[in-house]
Amino acid sequence: MSKDWLEQIQWTEDGLVPVIAQQHDSCRVVMFAWMNRESLQLTVEEGYAVYWSRSRQRLWHKGEESGHRQKIIDMQLDCDGDVILLKVDQVGGIACHTGRESCFYQSLENGQWVSKEPVLKDPKHIYK
Amino acid sequence: MSKDWLEQIQWTEDGLVPVIAQQHDSCRVVMFAWMNRESLQLTVEEGYAVYWSRSRQRLWHKGEESGHRQKIIDMQLDCDGDVILLKVDQVGGIACHTGRESCFYQSLENGQWVSKEPVLKDPKHIYK
Repeated sequence: MSKDWLEQIQWTEDGLVPVIAQQHDSCRVVMFAWMNRESLQLTVEEGYAVYWSRSRQRLWHKGEESGHRQKIIDMQLDCDGDVILLKVDQVGGIACHTGRESCFYQSLENGQWVSKEPVLKDPKHIYK
Repeated sequence: MSKDWLEQIQWTEDGLVPVIAQQHDSCRVVMFAWMNRESLQLTVEEGYAVYWSRSRQRLWHKGEESGHRQKIIDMQLDCDGDVILLKVDQVGGIACHTGRESCFYQSLENGQWVSKEPVLKDPKHIYK
């Protein structure tokens, strides 16, 4: 298959593209991460999200430890070709390493970030 | 008011933070952009999204030309403190400079990015 779709992406100088992951049915934004060319190709080939971990400088098969993989339902590109929006089905209903559904669980209220959401599973039981 | 909430944000080396804008009721992700410290403060003070335009290297009051401002409904921070999710009410129902509701209007289908969404208003009539 032609790789034109990869060429159309405007990669950063570091060869990355920002990626937003949104639960396809609830529309909840659950995560934000980065992909490089290889991880994006793997994502499409495997049908599950593969990110590029900037902190660990390696491919990160989302859910590789936790089992909380993200099945790809749809993949969207923005008008400038430099941001990807993934519609996913979040396995286990937990995207965040804190054991919450979404990484976005803090809201700004009266000048403070307030945690608004319960931990669904203790991280001690998610990561061995 | 204390500015601790600003200190808790993990800014990039360039002093920026990535920002996802999501229409609060439809849950549609409409845009992705960046903020610096000043634009984030202005966003909170004015109640409407102010971004930092990296291409123009200046503050960008979203909608300053088009009128398509983004009223802030909620502001969320992710687990690592380095990504912001804005719940907005998109004035005019158009977030994209192409005249579409959302910047994410292309889906990957059979190895091609396919435009899936109509232009609601001709950009010639949005921008003078």
